[in-house]
Amino acid sequence: MALIVQKYGGTSVGDVDRIKNVAQRIQKTRAEGHRLVVVVSARSGVTNELIARAKAINDHPDTREMDMLLAIGEQETIALTAMALHALNIPAVSYTGAQAGIFTDQVFTKAKIKKINPQPILKDLQDGKVVIVAGFQGINEEGQITTLGRGGSDLTAIALAAACRADKCEIYTDVDGVYTADPRVVKNAKKIDEISYDEMLELASLGSKVMQSRSVEFAKQYGVVFEVRSSFNHNPGTIVKEEVAYMEKVVVRGVALDKDQAKVVISSLPDKPATAATIFNALANASINVDMIVQTVGHTGSVDLTFTVQRDDAANAVKVLPAILAQIGGGELKAFDNIAKLSVVGVGMRTHAGVAATLFTALGNAGINIQLIATSEIKITVAVDRARAEEAQRAAHDAFALGT
Amino acid sequence: MALIVQKYGGTSVGDVDRIKNVAQRIQKTRAEGHRLVVVVSARSGVTNELIARAKAINDHPDTREMDMLLAIGEQETIALTAMALHALNIPAVSYTGAQAGIFTDQVFTKAKIKKINPQPILKDLQDGKVVIVAGFQGINEEGQITTLGRGGSDLTAIALAAACRADKCEIYTDVDGVYTADPRVVKNAKKIDEISYDEMLELASLGSKVMQSRSVEFAKQYGVVFEVRSSFNHNPGTIVKEEVAYMEKVVVRGVALDKDQAKVVISSLPDKPATAATIFNALANASINVDMIVQTVGHTGSVDLTFTVQRDDAANAVKVLPAILAQIGGGELKAFDNIAKLSVVGVGMRTHAGVAATLFTALGNAGINIQLIATSEIKITVAVDRARAEEAQRAAHDAFALGT
Repeated sequence: MALIVQKYGGTSVGDVDRIKNVAQRIQKTRAEGHRLVVVVSARSGVTNELIARAKAINDHPDTREMDMLLAIGEQETIALTAMALHALNIPAVSYTGAQAGIFTDQVFTKAKIKKINPQPILKDLQDGKVVIVAGFQGINEEGQITTLGRGGSDLTAIALAAACRADKCEIYTDVDGVYTADPRVVKNAKKIDEISYDEMLELASLGSKVMQSRSVEFAKQYGVVFEVRSSFNHNPGTIVKEEVAYMEKVVVRGVALDKDQAKVVISSLPDKPATAATIFNALANASINVDMIVQTVGHTGSVDLTFTVQRDDAANAVKVLPAILAQIGGGELKAFDNIAKLSVVGVGMRTHAGVAATLFTALGNAGINIQLIATSEIKITVAVDRARAEEAQRAAHDAFALGT
Repeated sequence: MALIVQKYGGTSVGDVDRIKNVAQRIQKTRAEGHRLVVVVSARSGVTNELIARAKAINDHPDTREMDMLLAIGEQETIALTAMALHALNIPAVSYTGAQAGIFTDQVFTKAKIKKINPQPILKDLQDGKVVIVAGFQGINEEGQITTLGRGGSDLTAIALAAACRADKCEIYTDVDGVYTADPRVVKNAKKIDEISYDEMLELASLGSKVMQSRSVEFAKQYGVVFEVRSSFNHNPGTIVKEEVAYMEKVVVRGVALDKDQAKVVISSLPDKPATAATIFNALANASINVDMIVQTVGHTGSVDLTFTVQRDDAANAVKVLPAILAQIGGGELKAFDNIAKLSVVGVGMRTHAGVAATLFTALGNAGINIQLIATSEIKITVAVDRARAEEAQRAAHDAFALGT
């Protein structure tokens, strides 16, 4: 008899029938003899509806009141899910984030979990009840309702799994698991059976939208093994866990693609100390995240600086930079918003040479130009033209034989 | 500078524009130098939507989960109302029932308020904030969300007014106040400026649907003076307060009508001890409330028993009674669901004779037959044919010169 934490996302509990379906899945797990803590999100669409209503009243709603408002989405789902279980004669009880003892810091709309007091949940589990917990929400020390921001329900599930010392955490979503590449782009993409936290982190932060990085980081920190799987079938999913020796035999685990990138090129910068620091400080102050950075020294002693930003941030960068360049005393600004970022990821890369060569050869053979390169221990990233991005993903996927 | 508790019902906060309208009313009161605690209901329709969703999942939803579900209606409104005040640059903070320290007993869906800890609210008031509190909800000692049942938001407002020692409590609704009769039936019905708790109680329980009795009883018990008025205009409403001497000069304060009554007649009952007790116990066990009761001894030594019930309960009474009559050994059952109950109410009645005579004469002159009569200290009630009920109300209203 294991203790399992299951998390069902917004599409999995999207309407009355889907909530009944979730109840049946819970019934099945329970019939196998397991105890269950179930974390649910708001029905898909509800959060956006609430935000729209808030904005119709106030263009810049107060974040405390926003959390008060948004928390009702999950509170609806926990009550309905408990009722659906009762209809199957399964004892169940719902918990808001506050009732579940999920204490957070004071940062409304993107609070961090500080501690969890799992005693009430453990008592109800002991009494044979299924415990349904509202995802995405908590309470601060003053008793005010907070929300955890994007991916918050996943975080709730993983944090509860850690606090309750669960044997397993299952993240149910609308995809079958983590794939070697986007199956809509790469026809022979394969579902990955097991993946390390670090690989998952690189894939999560690189446009494989299955989970937010923070949840994976939390799971890694507390050693929570979790499985990403679909709530619409019974296929096994992808298990995410600490790296084990055999994982290193796989050099490349997957190929991720992020098509919403832009490239900013500043040429003919004066080659002075602190020039780059001045530029990146200005961008940071404007809340623009810079990703890949390449600096080259030109023939005339001047410097060319190239970096990528999220496509949404490109216009803002172009607005902020001219004043900075005037202050520095030179530099010519160009921006290109037709960039995609392709990454190959794998813990085996650490011990295998030649991964970069294989990737560059594959893209070269396909006639795809590499605009920027960045590397980490378990990842190689290249920036390419967005129009060729999917083709590049297929070429890389084939080059590392991920589809076979 | 007074402390005022205002309560806005579901139609007053029915949509985004109405919430903005409420914010403007609050702004006006605040500009007059007053401190404010504002209690709001769920947007009209929301509670019914939630109930429908629950019933689609479970025919008999658990009451604890029902309260968890229903509480979100008010939680939405408090957040939106606070945001609307912020848009007017008014500092405001929202409170759930739990945060407002409204402790109740354990009876889900119809909890009773046990105590209120107003300290956090008083602190925010002192800091110059408008405090917005979710009506209809509280928390029990175990930290579980409870709701207060029908009329719960009025009760929240009156209980908070008592706990915060407010100078005044204003109940905003979609009518201008309490009238001497239903203005849709009696054209010259007049708004009552001041009314005693006892009169309001009799009117509330007799089909003047302005407020539930329990809120009025609570106000009477704690001496909370409140005003019932419209949120759609700025007319003064009706002030409800302890009886004062001048009120007794008005013999009849108003004429109430309840058209949803039924009459049950059991004739030829054996004249034995405990016959009536057996019958009314059986009805009570079936959760049927009996109102007016008349018993007469027939010529043959048998007994005729007549009583009224809510129209909705008539079918159930007819189903329950035959087995009881068989057990008693006699009695012939007839039910009439075309009954209305007309009441004249006034604290002045205590010291004035002849009220009954005036009423009966008025109805007699109008040719309206009186089927049953019941009296209390400040009320005379008659049962009449529903088809003649509105005519009866007009005749009584004229007879006591309430329209002049």
